[in-house]
Amino acid sequence: MKLQTISWSKNKIKIIDQSWLPLKLKYLDLGDLKSLWQAIKVLKVRGAPALGAAAALGVYLGVKDSRAANFRDLRIQLDKAILYLASSRPTARNLFYGLERMRRTLLNNKEKRVTQIKKLLLQEARAIIEEDKIACRRIGFYGAKLIQDQDAILTICNTGILATIDYGTALGVIYSAKEDGKALKVFVSETRPLMQGSRLTTWELKRKGIDVTLICDNMAATLMQQGRIRKILVGADRIAANGDSANKIGTYSLAVLAHYHKIPFYVAAPASTFDLKIKNGRGIIIEERPGQEVTRMFFKQRLAARGVKVFNPAFDVTPHGLISAIITDQGIIRSPYQVSIKKLIKR
Amino acid sequence: MKLQTISWSKNKIKIIDQSWLPLKLKYLDLGDLKSLWQAIKVLKVRGAPALGAAAALGVYLGVKDSRAANFRDLRIQLDKAILYLASSRPTARNLFYGLERMRRTLLNNKEKRVTQIKKLLLQEARAIIEEDKIACRRIGFYGAKLIQDQDAILTICNTGILATIDYGTALGVIYSAKEDGKALKVFVSETRPLMQGSRLTTWELKRKGIDVTLICDNMAATLMQQGRIRKILVGADRIAANGDSANKIGTYSLAVLAHYHKIPFYVAAPASTFDLKIKNGRGIIIEERPGQEVTRMFFKQRLAARGVKVFNPAFDVTPHGLISAIITDQGIIRSPYQVSIKKLIKR
Repeated sequence: MKLQTISWSKNKIKIIDQSWLPLKLKYLDLGDLKSLWQAIKVLKVRGAPALGAAAALGVYLGVKDSRAANFRDLRIQLDKAILYLASSRPTARNLFYGLERMRRTLLNNKEKRVTQIKKLLLQEARAIIEEDKIACRRIGFYGAKLIQDQDAILTICNTGILATIDYGTALGVIYSAKEDGKALKVFVSETRPLMQGSRLTTWELKRKGIDVTLICDNMAATLMQQGRIRKILVGADRIAANGDSANKIGTYSLAVLAHYHKIPFYVAAPASTFDLKIKNGRGIIIEERPGQEVTRMFFKQRLAARGVKVFNPAFDVTPHGLISAIITDQGIIRSPYQVSIKKLIKR
Repeated sequence: MKLQTISWSKNKIKIIDQSWLPLKLKYLDLGDLKSLWQAIKVLKVRGAPALGAAAALGVYLGVKDSRAANFRDLRIQLDKAILYLASSRPTARNLFYGLERMRRTLLNNKEKRVTQIKKLLLQEARAIIEEDKIACRRIGFYGAKLIQDQDAILTICNTGILATIDYGTALGVIYSAKEDGKALKVFVSETRPLMQGSRLTTWELKRKGIDVTLICDNMAATLMQQGRIRKILVGADRIAANGDSANKIGTYSLAVLAHYHKIPFYVAAPASTFDLKIKNGRGIIIEERPGQEVTRMFFKQRLAARGVKVFNPAFDVTPHGLISAIITDQGIIRSPYQVSIKKLIKR
C-alpha cells in the first residue's frame, strides 16, 4: 500500500497518526484548527516538509467555512489562522513557508470573490503537497549520486515518507539509491526523547526492504570508531543563509563525531527549508519541550528523580563548517555556502 | 539514612535492588550463587567497583556451606563459583579482580583447615568492601583538586554510591568537592538504554542536595557548544596499561565532543579497575546486550519495527589521547599514561 502522510480528503486533513507507530498504522481526520494545532504540538504529524503541508491545509481549514462576505473579513480570519498555527512549533522553516504561501495567495487575489479565493487557497495548499512530492524525488536524484553501492549510512530521527508527503529527504536519498540498484546498510539512531528513529524510521525502512540496524544515540561514536559508517545523512528543519542547519537534537553531535572520524556528513532538505532572512544559526529559534518527555517514558512511568530539572531542546544547530554538502531539490550545495546558497536557492 | 550498596548481612549478600530506583529504595538478600549471578546480569547490582565486592562475596557464598573435607575439594568448589561468576558480565575489571583476590586467599592458605580458610575468605571479601570505601574517598580527595567553585560538570551513567559501596568514583569527586564547600552544577546524561544516569544518578545527586539537570545523551554536544560545560567526569570499567579506558556506552562520544570543544575530560577509577596485562583498548572485551533493551521500553512496549536488528554494546573504549587525566586512589595520572600508570599502579 502506498503511504501518504498528509492529504486533503472529504473536507478534512487526513494524516497518518504517527503517535501509534510502529504498533499500528492509523489515520486521523482533522476537521478543525484546534485539532490540527494539537496534532502538530504532540507530533502526531511532524517533519519539516510535512509541517509545511499541514500548515497550508490548516489555513484553508481555518477559512473554508468562513461567512466573510468580503476580502477584508476573510483576511482577518486567515491571519488569525496563520497566527494560531505559527504558535504551534517554532523551529521548522517549512511550517512558516506554508503559512506565507497561503497569505500570499490571499493577497494576490484580493480582487476576486470570497468563494473564488477559498478555492484558490485549497489549490495552493494542494500545490504545496504536489511540490513536496517532486522536491523529495529531486533530492533523491541528486543525493543518490553521492551514495556508493555497499555504503553503510547513519541517520537520525525520521526524514522519510512520514516527514514529508510520500518519499523523504535524507531517507529519500536512500530510497533513490536503492532504486538505482545500490545495496545499502542503514544504521538508525533512535533519537531520544521521542524515538522517531526507533519508532518511525526503522518501520519505514523495514517496509521498504532496506537493511536497517537500530542503535541508541550514544552508540553512534562507537560505530564510527570501528569504521562501520561510510556516510551520515540527516534532514534539516531550518537552514540559514550561511548554511548553518537546525535539525533534530543529536544532529550536531553526529556532525562533530563525523568531523573527528573524517566521515562525510550530508544534510538533505528542500528549498523551502532555507531561511535566507537569517544570517546564521544563532538566529534560529530552538524549541524547548516539556521535561516530562525525558523524565517519564512517554509521559507514564517516572524514570528520574522526582522534581529533577531537565534541559530538553528539540533541535540543535550544526555550523556549516561541519557539513560536507547540502542536498536540495535544486542541486547539491557545497562550501562556500553563503555564495552557493544564494546562487541556487531562489525565493 | 546512610546508604550502602552491598554488605554481608545475616549470612547473605544484601544489595540495594537498583532495578526499583528511582521509584523505590528496596533491598534484596541474595542467599545463593544463582540469584547473585542473575542480579548481576540484569543490573540489579552494577558499577565496576560494586561488582568487585559482589563477586568476592559471591565466591564466599559459593563455598560457605561446602562439605569439602580438604583443601583440594574446597578448591574445586571455589573454582566452580569463580568460573560461574566470571560468566556474568565480561567488561568490568573489578569483578575479575574480586574473583582473583578470593582465589589467591585460598591458595595462600592451603595448609589451613577448611573452616579456617572459609573464615579467611569472608574476611577477604569484607576487606575488599572496606578498601573500596577508602579508595573512593581517596579518589574524591585527589579529584576535588581539579574542580573549581561554580564548575558545571557533565557526567554519564552512575559512578556514585550505587556503583561502589558507599561513595563513588566520578561522583565521589563531586561529593568531595561539595564537602570542600564548592558549589557545583551537574548535568547528567540519561544513559540509554538502561537509564542509569536518569534513574540512579539524578536520584543520588538530588539526595545529596546537588544542583542536577538531566539531559538525553544526544543533547550533551549542544551544552558544550553553548559553553555550559566546564568539565566532564566519568568512571571506568577497565583501563588498559596505556590508559585506554572502557566505560559505559556513550563515554567515547563525550570524549570526542570534549576534545572538539576543548573541555577537560577526566576518568575516575580505583587501582582495581586497571588491567595491566592488557596493552591497549583493543584487548578489552565489550559486552553486547540483548537488542530488546533498545527495541522495547524496559522489555515492555515495543518501540521499534518488529524484527529490526540492533547493535547494543554496553561499553565503549576511549583512547588515552582523549583523556586529560585519570583520577585514582593512588593519585592523578597524566600523559604519558604508559609510564605514569606503571609508576603509580602497583599490583
